[in-house]
Amino acid sequence: MNGRGRRPGSPDTREAILAAARAAFAAHGFARTTIRAVARDAGVDPALVHHYFGSKDGLFAAAVELPVNPVEVLAPVAAVPPGERGAAAVRALLGVWDSPGGAGALALFRSAVADPERMAMIREFVVGRALGVLTAGLGLSPAERARRTALAGSQLAGLIVTRYVMRVEPIASAPAEELVAAVGAAVQRYLTGPVPGAQRYGGLD
Amino acid sequence: MNGRGRRPGSPDTREAILAAARAAFAAHGFARTTIRAVARDAGVDPALVHHYFGSKDGLFAAAVELPVNPVEVLAPVAAVPPGERGAAAVRALLGVWDSPGGAGALALFRSAVADPERMAMIREFVVGRALGVLTAGLGLSPAERARRTALAGSQLAGLIVTRYVMRVEPIASAPAEELVAAVGAAVQRYLTGPVPGAQRYGGLD
Repeated sequence: MNGRGRRPGSPDTREAILAAARAAFAAHGFARTTIRAVARDAGVDPALVHHYFGSKDGLFAAAVELPVNPVEVLAPVAAVPPGERGAAAVRALLGVWDSPGGAGALALFRSAVADPERMAMIREFVVGRALGVLTAGLGLSPAERARRTALAGSQLAGLIVTRYVMRVEPIASAPAEELVAAVGAAVQRYLTGPVPGAQRYGGLD
Repeated sequence: MNGRGRRPGSPDTREAILAAARAAFAAHGFARTTIRAVARDAGVDPALVHHYFGSKDGLFAAAVELPVNPVEVLAPVAAVPPGERGAAAVRALLGVWDSPGGAGALALFRSAVADPERMAMIREFVVGRALGVLTAGLGLSPAERARRTALAGSQLAGLIVTRYVMRVEPIASAPAEELVAAVGAAVQRYLTGPVPGAQRYGGLD
């Protein structure tokens, strides 16, 4: 499909950009996809991509049909001291999943579990981009950052699965702030506490 | 379908028992389903159900087509001191999922995520039955046992999702024993450590 000559503002143009973005994110991943390349593939000016989607984050969220942008969801985490990031991350996550938008998030999770390629795209965006705020500015090596981010992500993913997918009680109907306290402490330990197992494999802590 | 008069030993008989078991577990849940009732529904003698499936656990695992029996998987947890149960649970779980049987476990997880009724049956068996070994003999109230079991389950579920479903690095390719140390410590804290959030909601710790 050659998209050159599409008129700005037509629904076709927006769809052409999204189709090009989906193909690029699937082929190259989030980090190695550029707005310039997507615009070229769609036959439009990069400024038009910015106009429609604001940023590469926004383009990704629209291309993969994320009901919310995880980078925006986790933005409050950057506003609290490092020692409070675990609780802030749980609070931000539950805020979305407990809201009317939670149904869309659950539908997305189900579709991604059934579709490894879609899961891979979401994984790279959520873990490689959105969760980065958890370990920003802690002076960790890249390897240690990746390890702690993944461990914290495992607890956050488990909370989502237990509360919304499996609906395990008493987690499924617990007040959000009880989970912020209980699970936030576990996430916090992965971020800034001692994590056993690193020493013997050459980690930093 | 009236199963009375089926000959013991015929494949039809085994299938009739499994069909009756599936219907009973779905309608009444694991705890309130009895081998006697399943045998009656299938038109066979209860001794035949025991002969084929050994126990209600075994009947459930066969009815829901679990690739392994979670009660047997977690049996090693009962053999270690309470303070080592977190690590033992992670080790037992990874032992199965890292084995050739792991592909079947992953397929089961995918099908359960897409099928809330199947997920509900598995949840009741895994959380209400198999994970009970984690908090056995700790002198906890039933409510506190349920809370700690669910929290520990959230971390175990998150580890499975992160390593095998989302394939997040470095967790996806980490040596099992590194995860036993790092994640086992988090599970252990949920089982026997202080868990924030209980105080303000009237919990025991």
